[in-house]
Amino acid sequence: MTNTPNPTACLLIIGDEILSGRTQDAHLKFFGERLAAMGIGLSEVRVLPDVESRIIEALNAMRSAYTYVFTTGGIGPTHDDITTPCVAKAFGRKVIRHPDAERDLRAYYGDRTNDARLRMAEVPDGAGVSLIENHISVAPGYRIENVFVMAGVPTVTRAMFDAVAPTLKGGDPVYSQSVDAHVREGDIAADLSAIQNAHPHVAIGSYPFMRLDKLGTSIVARSTDKATIAAVIAKVAAAMRVLGGEPIIGPSP
Amino acid sequence: MTNTPNPTACLLIIGDEILSGRTQDAHLKFFGERLAAMGIGLSEVRVLPDVESRIIEALNAMRSAYTYVFTTGGIGPTHDDITTPCVAKAFGRKVIRHPDAERDLRAYYGDRTNDARLRMAEVPDGAGVSLIENHISVAPGYRIENVFVMAGVPTVTRAMFDAVAPTLKGGDPVYSQSVDAHVREGDIAADLSAIQNAHPHVAIGSYPFMRLDKLGTSIVARSTDKATIAAVIAKVAAAMRVLGGEPIIGPSP
Repeated sequence: MTNTPNPTACLLIIGDEILSGRTQDAHLKFFGERLAAMGIGLSEVRVLPDVESRIIEALNAMRSAYTYVFTTGGIGPTHDDITTPCVAKAFGRKVIRHPDAERDLRAYYGDRTNDARLRMAEVPDGAGVSLIENHISVAPGYRIENVFVMAGVPTVTRAMFDAVAPTLKGGDPVYSQSVDAHVREGDIAADLSAIQNAHPHVAIGSYPFMRLDKLGTSIVARSTDKATIAAVIAKVAAAMRVLGGEPIIGPSP
Repeated sequence: MTNTPNPTACLLIIGDEILSGRTQDAHLKFFGERLAAMGIGLSEVRVLPDVESRIIEALNAMRSAYTYVFTTGGIGPTHDDITTPCVAKAFGRKVIRHPDAERDLRAYYGDRTNDARLRMAEVPDGAGVSLIENHISVAPGYRIENVFVMAGVPTVTRAMFDAVAPTLKGGDPVYSQSVDAHVREGDIAADLSAIQNAHPHVAIGSYPFMRLDKLGTSIVARSTDKATIAAVIAKVAAAMRVLGGEPIIGPSP
């Protein structure tokens, strides 16, 4: 465990179809898990509609606030795919056609190549721009400075994340361990407060659940230090036993 | 169809467990669908950690930007439930114990009543505060001006939403209809642009899919006007047929 704060990240999910409830989001949990495993804290997620001004405003707020910004959605060939012009405007740059992306798209589509598909080769102009490989459907994502612009189709998003993950600077891995029991949150709350106060560098979360028609509580301890997590979980388990619960401790971090 | 803009809403999902990927979000799609059906546009979703300054900042930005703000999470009895103090600070008010909530919690918990559980009776002080009934686990949510503070456990959140829905001012219902075919986005993109330009008051979304190992495109038209939706869907279906697709039109709005 070091005292350097871990890098931070923000996820910007772009698309009317998520906000209208038509499509279940498939990105939030994926990014949360993958980034946490790399010691990068997902600090915020925003879901925005396909509206230029809103996307530009959010991008500019986020790219200065977080180490990394990931966007999903809006880089396809149709009229509602407006992410790239928005990213370019946020950075004050022009949109150009990236020669490598154009070459790959022309090779893939052959005589089905058209203007709409070539929009998928467009990226902001200038320094600090690099393509993100898409081995599933060819059309690339791209990185511009600390912003990673990715597709919205989950299989493609995941392939793009795998492609960029080795290039991200991670932090100390954050470990977590849980302990569950049929003890009610309101009964264990005072013990938990005392344990949290004794271990300020561990994040202790409390989540009620209903199982076999009985209320219970799942306690999760998160930290970069495994030994402290183990100590916290042992204290929570002891408190659960005093309250008549039979604690079930999750796998070691 | 009128020309009054529909009310807008923002959803603020509060909780480390969502950002860490531990828990799959269950709120976004629910709120999106329910609000859309009432003619209230879900215009933004933010997911934030259990960090006071971040929650206060977001609440103040959102409550002035949207007709309604809904928060989920952080109103339980444990140390990590910090939503109510944050809401009170955002509004510049003190936290008080609401007498009706205290009465209901004492009646429900009897001699298991304790300080932690009575925290669930706390609300911001002053005008414009009303409780939101929770018929599942008693501890209420509350409304303060245009902000609705709700539980994070999905069954409870939904019960609370059902309780407040009749009090919300809706707008013109937004209808949608879809048409799918095994036609690729890049092939139909030019036709779609032309149809969108001819119908600026219909939001036309294009979503690629993979079915039976073949790529296809789902087109969704959304509007407050059913006749225009039908016209748009008919034009898209015709364009799909010209491209060799067999359009499947979804149920009428």
